[in-house]
Amino acid sequence: MARQSLRAQIVDAAAERFHTHGYNAAGVKDITDAAGVPKGSFYNHFESKEALAVTILDLYGQTRRLEDLADESVAPLTRLRSHFEFLRAEQEGFEYSRGCLLGNFGAEISDHSEVLRRQVQQGFTCWRDALAGALADAVRLGEVDQSLDPQTTALFVMTAWEGALLAARTSRSGASFDAFFSNVFERLLRPSAAS
Amino acid sequence: MARQSLRAQIVDAAAERFHTHGYNAAGVKDITDAAGVPKGSFYNHFESKEALAVTILDLYGQTRRLEDLADESVAPLTRLRSHFEFLRAEQEGFEYSRGCLLGNFGAEISDHSEVLRRQVQQGFTCWRDALAGALADAVRLGEVDQSLDPQTTALFVMTAWEGALLAARTSRSGASFDAFFSNVFERLLRPSAAS
Repeated sequence: MARQSLRAQIVDAAAERFHTHGYNAAGVKDITDAAGVPKGSFYNHFESKEALAVTILDLYGQTRRLEDLADESVAPLTRLRSHFEFLRAEQEGFEYSRGCLLGNFGAEISDHSEVLRRQVQQGFTCWRDALAGALADAVRLGEVDQSLDPQTTALFVMTAWEGALLAARTSRSGASFDAFFSNVFERLLRPSAAS
Repeated sequence: MARQSLRAQIVDAAAERFHTHGYNAAGVKDITDAAGVPKGSFYNHFESKEALAVTILDLYGQTRRLEDLADESVAPLTRLRSHFEFLRAEQEGFEYSRGCLLGNFGAEISDHSEVLRRQVQQGFTCWRDALAGALADAVRLGEVDQSLDPQTTALFVMTAWEGALLAARTSRSGASFDAFFSNVFERLLRPSAAS
């Protein structure tokens, strides 16, 4: 039990450090200091900082509420809007700092760790599939035009969100989120927007 | 003259290191080693790594060919498409590694250096304004619907590009660029897409 708890302390501290400082700027000692555990204990639980980051990316994915995108009791476009409103509120709560852990790791270490690049890519794929599921429902129920391709549109909307998030961080404002919502929900996904 | 050349060597080496390794992973010694100059010479030319990064972000902005977006001899939507085709070709040339220096710095250090955050923000603002100029011409010439707001749409398209670029890096593929071009040019900016 004690070992399990030590591991959890390391995971929690690392998730916070990775998200606030980035991967390279968060060393093993920073993480163990923040966790209040001896540095030597780290390697009893994780083979490497990279292995810990894989675990954290996986846990992060589980907090994205992707299951709500498949909730058939809610209209598909309403599900999609609620999903991005949840993500927006999260960023507002952090005053536009932090960003998305997938996006941050993708930008910082895609070119330097094949293991982490694949883990980020897997996270994006799960997210895209969940968005595409809701969009396919929207097509099926006639909420959007029949010609809309759910997978391509899901990829576009997901990446547009990641870019909006980046701009929110650099501008410390929600203007890019406003532009995302108006362009995606009032233009791109309007029935009249596709023909 | 010799001092000028030493400075240029440092700038060139740092631009490469920052772009390929990121800001935190490129130390002053890495940069001076890559430039083939003594570490001590760095501070004769730059007050800090941060000051050097400001210079490099400024130079990077000048390579984005924003002036082409204002070329009135070319139809506005053609200018816009050519601009993103130029950016896409650049990424393909690097096999989807590297990304955009503005986006990379924005993701990695927006929360840690106010000076660099502002410099990145300034770069994004110039880019957005150039895109908005072409979009305003497209509205004026009737290439897109009159109801389209150039500034909001420019912000959306720019951030959507940054997100597509991130996804291209993590997936090592151009699928997100395909999704960007089809959604932006065949849906969002189609005359029939706005009403």
